[in-house]
Amino acid sequence: MDVYKKALDAHQKWGGKWQVTSKTKVDNKDDLAIAYTPGVAQPCLEIKKDKQNAYKYTLKNNLVAVVSDGSAVLGLGNIGGLAGLPVMEGKCILFKEFGGVDAIPLVLDTQNSDEIVDTIKNVAISFGGINLEDISAPRCFEIEQKLKQILDIPVFHDDQHGTAIVVLAGVINSLKLVGKKIDQAKFVVNGMGAAGTSIAKLLLEYGVKHMTCCDKDGILNDDNATLCHHKELVSLTGSHNKKGTLSDALAGADVFVGVSVANCVTPDMVSSMAKDAVIFAMANPSPEILPDIAKQAGAKVVGSGRSDFANQINNVLAFPGVFRGALDAKATQITQQMKLSAAQAIASLVGDDELNENYVIPSPFDKRVAPAVAKAVFDMATKQGVVR
Amino acid sequence: MDVYKKALDAHQKWGGKWQVTSKTKVDNKDDLAIAYTPGVAQPCLEIKKDKQNAYKYTLKNNLVAVVSDGSAVLGLGNIGGLAGLPVMEGKCILFKEFGGVDAIPLVLDTQNSDEIVDTIKNVAISFGGINLEDISAPRCFEIEQKLKQILDIPVFHDDQHGTAIVVLAGVINSLKLVGKKIDQAKFVVNGMGAAGTSIAKLLLEYGVKHMTCCDKDGILNDDNATLCHHKELVSLTGSHNKKGTLSDALAGADVFVGVSVANCVTPDMVSSMAKDAVIFAMANPSPEILPDIAKQAGAKVVGSGRSDFANQINNVLAFPGVFRGALDAKATQITQQMKLSAAQAIASLVGDDELNENYVIPSPFDKRVAPAVAKAVFDMATKQGVVR
Repeated sequence: MDVYKKALDAHQKWGGKWQVTSKTKVDNKDDLAIAYTPGVAQPCLEIKKDKQNAYKYTLKNNLVAVVSDGSAVLGLGNIGGLAGLPVMEGKCILFKEFGGVDAIPLVLDTQNSDEIVDTIKNVAISFGGINLEDISAPRCFEIEQKLKQILDIPVFHDDQHGTAIVVLAGVINSLKLVGKKIDQAKFVVNGMGAAGTSIAKLLLEYGVKHMTCCDKDGILNDDNATLCHHKELVSLTGSHNKKGTLSDALAGADVFVGVSVANCVTPDMVSSMAKDAVIFAMANPSPEILPDIAKQAGAKVVGSGRSDFANQINNVLAFPGVFRGALDAKATQITQQMKLSAAQAIASLVGDDELNENYVIPSPFDKRVAPAVAKAVFDMATKQGVVR
Repeated sequence: MDVYKKALDAHQKWGGKWQVTSKTKVDNKDDLAIAYTPGVAQPCLEIKKDKQNAYKYTLKNNLVAVVSDGSAVLGLGNIGGLAGLPVMEGKCILFKEFGGVDAIPLVLDTQNSDEIVDTIKNVAISFGGINLEDISAPRCFEIEQKLKQILDIPVFHDDQHGTAIVVLAGVINSLKLVGKKIDQAKFVVNGMGAAGTSIAKLLLEYGVKHMTCCDKDGILNDDNATLCHHKELVSLTGSHNKKGTLSDALAGADVFVGVSVANCVTPDMVSSMAKDAVIFAMANPSPEILPDIAKQAGAKVVGSGRSDFANQINNVLAFPGVFRGALDAKATQITQQMKLSAAQAIASLVGDDELNENYVIPSPFDKRVAPAVAKAVFDMATKQGVVR
């Protein structure tokens, strides 16, 4: 029985992968008087006095909404909020199992950006954080940006930033392995959607100096960049007049990061890269180039999004710890510095003596990861003072 | 230590009265492949094919949102959504403990009716039902009405209908005890807010023929009824030209139902009522008249909202079973007939040999109640065919 059939059967058996559990019994009058009326009036009044008390007396201190409009779900595309619900439920149980974060799925019956912002704005007081999920580019940028401006709780689009954090962790260790410096290595990022854009920005933030961003029309430049976030990347990388295909970009490059489409990288392109090339080919389910083919063509390190290959770039390495740390630190936002710290924390778990071409990133099931990420995020939030 | 101090301490200890629990472990690659990627794609595709499959593969089949704008919380008034959150959390754990219904609190940062409707409309696909809570009149009527028109899941404003169901159950048994007929007894309902309006309507639906509705200006009539729902009650009870105070209304009445203000009923008023008068004085926390005073003045049966007096009218007798039955029946709405069936089911649990002036309604902790209500609601939904 294949994994899809197994999954369908399991989902039917579960009838929902999560449930609500009460932390207290309400078996008699006394229980009811404490957990509900009349006693519950007291925490209500304390919160009315000071909004911050909501974190003390309710689950707001540990509750994240996983919000999606279902416009870009897995490799399935725009299937709508309701059809995306099983993915959001899955995300919620990963939040709990990996990070101890209570998370509930909230799927939306609209794909209008303004309506999405208004809806989230109106319900956000119930939560300690908002994890945006599977919202298509470029709408995801605008929605996240607006919500960050309006809300006083962390807002985090995982498809962008979770992926960027884990890729950066893999890059840090890969460069260490091949003995190249972040500010000297030449990077090519291909696929400038939600993930690609955030990856490019975080790599630049970390210290990358030589980067070429490509999309389906080749190298992004003043001629072909029509979307706002593409123009921003042209500006950040200085590629205003740079022209060429992905193949042109890859010649002599040290690192390729792909969040694009299957099989768009050929063995010849890999051969044209610098010695000890590093490749993260994360198109799903079929990568930009298969690991063994890339290796044969001369790549030193190859990572992908898949669990059946070495060096899996899996967001579960980031988001549970990121929110765990942010919630514990009482952070009001998740900054670029907090993301950088998270990436470094993930990378640091691979010891120098363990580091090799098939192990540049910890396993998604490495129990040290979420606490390490949480600590890094907590410390940086505290240091930056972006806390309530 | 009083109940308020105890409750505050308990709420701090809990830090939220509920939590999210995963129904499955995700300890390894195989677990992850079934509960999340890639297997989760299959239930997504099944739902994309047919929306109804969301009930099969996700928690939509058992998940209710307890939604409030905090405009009319307990006796605290308009404290806002966030300050109302402890009450909503309490409601959620009662849903689970009494009815096996998974419920999550969703408090709103707006009290604009249109915004509330739009917000709920946009998130409703995540849920199998919407329980509106502590929304002030007359906005609650409009909000509920609009949502019922838009949504294909049950929408139930508990302050209105939960209260009405339990009051009707108490009325049924009280009249049985005193040997009066529903279509002959004279009713006075005082306090025409959310609860009073729904109580009056459900009593009329059940067969009450003689009813006078009073608000703070006395008997509702064409002169003083300015709000829509007051005008509707004037029309339903035919009190267009009826004038008088609450005191006037009570003279000769058989049943008084108060959801109004403390101490507005005097012993003299009670004495002016018919022999074997029945009184439900539910103003909170201080009733319209205290039970022992009402008894001394001649009342036969007295109920209140309080747990320290006999015959407590507690909504927990209704809402968990109502939603349990509605969800199990796959009901698309909760009709008046389903509410009447629920009331009769509650009333029927007090046996003829047990029925007495201090026991006209089961205890909130009577474990037979929720299943009996659920069955009654299930059967009526099925009979009426208001199911998906």
